[in-house]
Amino acid sequence: MSEEVEPGAWPYCDLAHLAHLELLTPKLDESLRFFTEVMGLWVSESTANSVYLRGWDDYEHHTLKLTAAPKPGLGHFAFRVRSPEALKRRVRVLEQSGLGQGWVEDERGHGPAYRFTTPDGHLMELYYETTWYTPTEASRPALKNQASRFPGKGANLRRLDHINLLASDVRAMRLFMEGYLGMKVTEQIVFSGGDEQGVWLTSNNKTYDVAITKDHLGAKGRFHHCTYAVDSREEVLRAADICLEHGVKIETGPHKHAIQQTFFLYVYEPGGNRFEVACPGARLLLAPDWRPIVWNEEERKKGQAWGLQTVPTFHTYGTPPVETQEA
Amino acid sequence: MSEEVEPGAWPYCDLAHLAHLELLTPKLDESLRFFTEVMGLWVSESTANSVYLRGWDDYEHHTLKLTAAPKPGLGHFAFRVRSPEALKRRVRVLEQSGLGQGWVEDERGHGPAYRFTTPDGHLMELYYETTWYTPTEASRPALKNQASRFPGKGANLRRLDHINLLASDVRAMRLFMEGYLGMKVTEQIVFSGGDEQGVWLTSNNKTYDVAITKDHLGAKGRFHHCTYAVDSREEVLRAADICLEHGVKIETGPHKHAIQQTFFLYVYEPGGNRFEVACPGARLLLAPDWRPIVWNEEERKKGQAWGLQTVPTFHTYGTPPVETQEA
Amino acid sequence: MSEEVEPGAWPYCDLAHLAHLELLTPKLDESLRFFTEVMGLWVSESTANSVYLRGWDDYEHHTLKLTAAPKPGLGHFAFRVRSPEALKRRVRVLEQSGLGQGWVEDERGHGPAYRFTTPDGHLMELYYETTWYTPTEASRPALKNQASRFPGKGANLRRLDHINLLASDVRAMRLFMEGYLGMKVTEQIVFSGGDEQGVWLTSNNKTYDVAITKDHLGAKGRFHHCTYAVDSREEVLRAADICLEHGVKIETGPHKHAIQQTFFLYVYEPGGNRFEVACPGARLLLAPDWRPIVWNEEERKKGQAWGLQTVPTFHTYGTPPVETQEA
Amino acid sequence: MSEEVEPGAWPYCDLAHLAHLELLTPKLDESLRFFTEVMGLWVSESTANSVYLRGWDDYEHHTLKLTAAPKPGLGHFAFRVRSPEALKRRVRVLEQSGLGQGWVEDERGHGPAYRFTTPDGHLMELYYETTWYTPTEASRPALKNQASRFPGKGANLRRLDHINLLASDVRAMRLFMEGYLGMKVTEQIVFSGGDEQGVWLTSNNKTYDVAITKDHLGAKGRFHHCTYAVDSREEVLRAADICLEHGVKIETGPHKHAIQQTFFLYVYEPGGNRFEVACPGARLLLAPDWRPIVWNEEERKKGQAWGLQTVPTFHTYGTPPVETQEA
Repeated sequence: MSEEVEPGAWPYCDLAHLAHLELLTPKLDESLRFFTEVMGLWVSESTANSVYLRGWDDYEHHTLKLTAAPKPGLGHFAFRVRSPEALKRRVRVLEQSGLGQGWVEDERGHGPAYRFTTPDGHLMELYYETTWYTPTEASRPALKNQASRFPGKGANLRRLDHINLLASDVRAMRLFMEGYLGMKVTEQIVFSGGDEQGVWLTSNNKTYDVAITKDHLGAKGRFHHCTYAVDSREEVLRAADICLEHGVKIETGPHKHAIQQTFFLYVYEPGGNRFEVACPGARLLLAPDWRPIVWNEEERKKGQAWGLQTVPTFHTYGTPPVETQEA
Repeated sequence: MSEEVEPGAWPYCDLAHLAHLELLTPKLDESLRFFTEVMGLWVSESTANSVYLRGWDDYEHHTLKLTAAPKPGLGHFAFRVRSPEALKRRVRVLEQSGLGQGWVEDERGHGPAYRFTTPDGHLMELYYETTWYTPTEASRPALKNQASRFPGKGANLRRLDHINLLASDVRAMRLFMEGYLGMKVTEQIVFSGGDEQGVWLTSNNKTYDVAITKDHLGAKGRFHHCTYAVDSREEVLRAADICLEHGVKIETGPHKHAIQQTFFLYVYEPGGNRFEVACPGARLLLAPDWRPIVWNEEERKKGQAWGLQTVPTFHTYGTPPVETQEA
Repeated sequence: MSEEVEPGAWPYCDLAHLAHLELLTPKLDESLRFFTEVMGLWVSESTANSVYLRGWDDYEHHTLKLTAAPKPGLGHFAFRVRSPEALKRRVRVLEQSGLGQGWVEDERGHGPAYRFTTPDGHLMELYYETTWYTPTEASRPALKNQASRFPGKGANLRRLDHINLLASDVRAMRLFMEGYLGMKVTEQIVFSGGDEQGVWLTSNNKTYDVAITKDHLGAKGRFHHCTYAVDSREEVLRAADICLEHGVKIETGPHKHAIQQTFFLYVYEPGGNRFEVACPGARLLLAPDWRPIVWNEEERKKGQAWGLQTVPTFHTYGTPPVETQEA
Repeated sequence: MSEEVEPGAWPYCDLAHLAHLELLTPKLDESLRFFTEVMGLWVSESTANSVYLRGWDDYEHHTLKLTAAPKPGLGHFAFRVRSPEALKRRVRVLEQSGLGQGWVEDERGHGPAYRFTTPDGHLMELYYETTWYTPTEASRPALKNQASRFPGKGANLRRLDHINLLASDVRAMRLFMEGYLGMKVTEQIVFSGGDEQGVWLTSNNKTYDVAITKDHLGAKGRFHHCTYAVDSREEVLRAADICLEHGVKIETGPHKHAIQQTFFLYVYEPGGNRFEVACPGARLLLAPDWRPIVWNEEERKKGQAWGLQTVPTFHTYGTPPVETQEA
């Protein structure tokens, strides 16, 4: 039935979008202050050990869950799928992957989620049923086509944009994301001999929802950073001004990546996790038959778009820290 | 088989994106100068009566075709679909609509296109096979993940964003776009008694590819405007500065629409067609179950987002002009 | 002695810059909330009936004094002069103007000020000795060449830019500002027959510190608006977004003035006074022999820079309101 | 007569503003293409060996003179003074400095100029009479309060902002600029033991017209860079995008200086001279009694505002190159 849609395959990916991630932090109060006072996220809900946050344009209950923990790192991250049927299809496939862990029913902000791990060990979930954010008196927007009020606070982050995972085996991660989740590769870093150093994948018209880069320390399942988007490059620069005023550790930027041309600012939130404020500009992936852009070693040596050399920590620092780092 | 994907239905729309439109102009040379010198579009190809143009980030051969004609107006507009199968599915359905006109094989820049009309009479096409733009020495970008060089000329328009059609019957147009093309309504203007005054539809994660608004002169199949996007609101303001310098007729703006929150500038190109430079900001439609935002008469009376009253011509001027207008 | 500097005459104006103004408000608490929460000004000091505020880049103790009063309007406004000698020179001249009122010794934030009225009755002061703002722990900037911390709140207004007075006799005001204060005219509106409708004057390299426009209600000594500057036009647009979220009354804009090319947003603060957020861009008056730009009636009919027609209230609304308005 | 103005002394500096500079280039045609096509300057006039250029908002005949020469470097730079008397006063003083060279009568774009050298050997001129730029049909602006049309080309540089000289003895240069020219120091770099590494001076309300920094190669009279201003930081970023597209060598940036907080982009023009595109934002020096901000060695070790370490070439590369560099 060549005319049939192959269920869940690109360009009909069952995954709708990156929905949220859980960040572990040994300094919950300071991390919370950073994300609300400095970055301008709204708080949706708080529990004993966790706080749920979102950007003013995020439509769901939360896009960031901060959880108190001994060490920084990624708790889990989740994608929302396009329909109940899409969820069933993905689960059927994942159950055959040997990486499935089963259903989680009691999480806040969304319905039943199927939990599994990536080949590198990152905890991931898929769900469909969700809780749309309902504005409070304080967060009600003037325009009803907006999820909540523009905060007018700090960096005024708009929405969750993407997550960057570190992996000991980038190729294995890519094959999993393509084969089991039906995602699409948009850009890659492949060194001579087919050595895959990084891959950027999407499930929709954004040029990427997930980036996976080589963990130069050889560790497994670590977190590199997550990114929230603002509307203009000027707002990224202003975020840098604001981080400077608040003594936030700026790792690198603002500058422009050659890959994906993302205009970035990388900082370390108080808990130790790397965090990015970025302006993806109007990067949309509209071509259904987009062919991956592949960057080789020589091209990467040129550094970022305007020539800035990548800082060494960008290739080694991740959370949780590895013993060798702590020594 | 409830688990099957219903072919071509949202959130798996067979249409990939608005691909291009043909504008008719009684002043081809002046219109061409406007789109290249003032707006900064690149020319892909020229023929006796037409010139093919594109923004620096448009990946196809062209997104705008200018054709010499006695009167201004819309020649046709086209969507690219997601796959060969998607095209077959849409054609099967359209053949049953009574609006089909058959295949067009000889157009530049893309493969076979199925031509049909909207209920209001606008000429429309669907196609899959396309010609990716190949940069020339002069248009080759420094970064290979970019379609062509940033022109550094005039308003530096980035990409085609959307088209706005005028219709004598907005509801009929909406039902056609939803039922036969599988598009999704994101926002609407519905006055008391269910009087549909406008509708915004999408086939992807952009909040809209097509806008359809009431033709207050009661004419059929007219064109309201088409829009190219730039990255920032500042660039829309700069486009206004540039139009002022070139004596381009500014109809209204820059200002911000309440509907879709598009930051707009409306001008008349030399041929008489309304043209918009806009910054959609980061408006992405990520929720697969988005529910249309419906604006009523009272809300519309508030004017645009910051209170600017809509100029009268915005509701009456379209191309081609109607007799009563010319009188 | 042709080689001598003529004391206090342009291009060596004795006045250094517009220093501060006192706004009267019948709703002190609401006005204070507007200027701090929505506009992002810092509070320097508070007394029983007044609050002293400043933008993050204003170097003096305050640039805005809010004072509780039965009706909105201008309390007084002040210029800082360039030296103690400059103050003596100006006072000598003003004492001969018949408009002098003598010294005021007990105001907060600055030393002895010489008080007088303009020909139209606005209360004005000149002083030299001032209190430089000393940052608190909360307002200390990260970079020591900055007056105080970037607030990261609301519109983040940077500095006081100019004041616009309404006058029953614009010509008399111009002659006073030029002759007694040594200010320089940069732009003017002069209708046929030499009817002066508006004048923009400066004492430094800014294109204007003071604007004086015709009071179409024929009242004397009224206030039109005062303006704080931000760095970019995007920040003015964001200020409009923020005003929309807070239900602040937007009178007109954002748009670009033809005169001085100021990018403006006019709102009414809760007390009833008109307030402007603007981006003067890089408007600098560097030519020591600048000749005034004179706009005639026909040119003014074109409206603002991009064609927006000036709203009627802009020519009639001022504070305090006149009886006829209140009726 | 304590009430008298001390002729030519701050805050009544006889110098009005940096007026223009002459850049020597071994590749005149390529340098010209860079400044017109890539940077967007307007050409005022051309002669056999020189071309005169200006930004769209520069009011004089030219602000940049490009002259063919065997090696890159600074030909001369000039300030316009505030009046004929101011010029006489400065000449009287300079004639006693032992650095005077006499009058130059035949330069294009301005009247008689008094020529002299700085203590480090840079050729400098002062003049009052000037030729205001007269727009041509092609360069006529839509708004008559603007010097010429916004070009809509490349980086669209607005106006000359400042010049940075390298000096073997920064202190001697500072004493000369203060004592003989009456300029004001706004910021300084002074290492332990009073070792002056850099100084920023102004003659008006801009925070600086001239920067003088230590030549780490010990050479005399060299040129570090000159800077043109644009209105927003976004435009500096766009200038970097444009330089990338044109293969222009980017030395460092865009980034923000801690000193003066200038948002910068440094490139090498084809002739080899360093050139800066910057956004000074709203940096105005309004306080007549501004006290210099002094940065010490430890503070400088922090790098630029957001932590970027200064590239080594920034301290060693200047024009003309010194022998040791060429080896």
